[in-house]
Amino acid sequence: MTNERPLILITNDDGVAAKGINELAACLRDLGDIVVFAPDGSRSGMSSAITSTLPIKYSLRRKEEGLTVYSCTGTPVDCVKLALNEVLDRMPDLLVSGINHGGNMAICVNYSGTMGAAAEGCIFRVPSLGVSLLDQSADADFSESCRLGRRVAELVLRDGLPDGTYLNLNVPKLPRVKGLKVCRQTDGRWTREFKRSENAAGEPVFWLTGSFERSSDEPDDDLLALDNGYASLVPCKIDVTDYDFKARMEGYEFI
Amino acid sequence: MTNERPLILITNDDGVAAKGINELAACLRDLGDIVVFAPDGSRSGMSSAITSTLPIKYSLRRKEEGLTVYSCTGTPVDCVKLALNEVLDRMPDLLVSGINHGGNMAICVNYSGTMGAAAEGCIFRVPSLGVSLLDQSADADFSESCRLGRRVAELVLRDGLPDGTYLNLNVPKLPRVKGLKVCRQTDGRWTREFKRSENAAGEPVFWLTGSFERSSDEPDDDLLALDNGYASLVPCKIDVTDYDFKARMEGYEFI
Repeated sequence: MTNERPLILITNDDGVAAKGINELAACLRDLGDIVVFAPDGSRSGMSSAITSTLPIKYSLRRKEEGLTVYSCTGTPVDCVKLALNEVLDRMPDLLVSGINHGGNMAICVNYSGTMGAAAEGCIFRVPSLGVSLLDQSADADFSESCRLGRRVAELVLRDGLPDGTYLNLNVPKLPRVKGLKVCRQTDGRWTREFKRSENAAGEPVFWLTGSFERSSDEPDDDLLALDNGYASLVPCKIDVTDYDFKARMEGYEFI
Repeated sequence: MTNERPLILITNDDGVAAKGINELAACLRDLGDIVVFAPDGSRSGMSSAITSTLPIKYSLRRKEEGLTVYSCTGTPVDCVKLALNEVLDRMPDLLVSGINHGGNMAICVNYSGTMGAAAEGCIFRVPSLGVSLLDQSADADFSESCRLGRRVAELVLRDGLPDGTYLNLNVPKLPRVKGLKVCRQTDGRWTREFKRSENAAGEPVFWLTGSFERSSDEPDDDLLALDNGYASLVPCKIDVTDYDFKARMEGYEFI
């Protein structure tokens, strides 16, 4: 660390104009210099998608003391890659993705563009955190999620994170949480996932919807904490190798 | 298991017309009834992206004894969800995604639509396998990757996989591999990721490119096996919780 103020990169998947990212930037401003580099519109459900067959662009939208805002035509992961490769003059001390309009607990971490961006920061060895509020409305009240996101951001700036680990913070829709619990990712999946309707030509089309069905019931499940009025914080790994099963497979006769 | 032949769902991210998926379907045909349900064009780099704001459609392209082929307007994960929720009359005994034109070793598992589809099958408790050949050309020779993919598919049909674990098979571009090694996901990241050029209006645009820089050097790294002429097989987990760091974080005073 030099004497410079910390550099904090902020992105999201709801787009640069969303309330959640703007409230996040405002509440982190006194912790460091903020660069917002976010998609130019909604990229929900983009996971870690990258744009490999089309070019992407970015543009400066606003610059004032301690805050610079860019928008980009790409996915959340494209935003992180472009900011780190081409735009920032040094590596950030922290990446925060969010605050997402809607929860990213349990298996949602797999589909979420918010969490895809946090994972990408982690791949670049930038301590990275995703923050989501369990309220999808455009005018959601982000004050409690800002308070908690800022607190975790301060701790990550102070202590860092292990290489290859990033954080997933989810905050229930409550004026004040009961506390913050360190959790595991609840096991489960979405069911009854499609609503069938018709397009103008009378052909069947399918809209993604569905409800979450949990398969685990552990005291440290993130969903349980959220149901009980706590914020949940799940540390996540980039390395998805299943080392236990790997050891068992080594006895296989493959070919 | 009933007396029915196994049902095998095949998908990919290169699209239903790609050589890799058609060779895969052909080489698995005698193992069971095959349903191909794949994107209508390339969806490379789509990771586990889902289509949440637009409707998706599918159509039957071909049906013959033991082989039914559909194409879908969605992402690879949309394909798996739609097939399992709306199209198949029972859960498949196996999902195979691929054979991808290009490798998905190391961190590529994070960005790959091929592996996103395999993960999605796993979330649905379908034993799932992604297969990739380290050759991006449209007319690549898939014979060795078919031989190995078929062999692993047979083992998975016979023995199943643990809940929450799916397989990532990569095959080097060789007429015959030296063998198959069970591996871990090599640590590393892409660097020098963008090629800058100009659009028609003279504005700078950025094309994703880059080269992979490894950060680990372990004897069981998948990249090492591939470099040495072996196919690599990495068992991957849906649960990304970092349990070690979770235990350390439980002492934190968050709020």
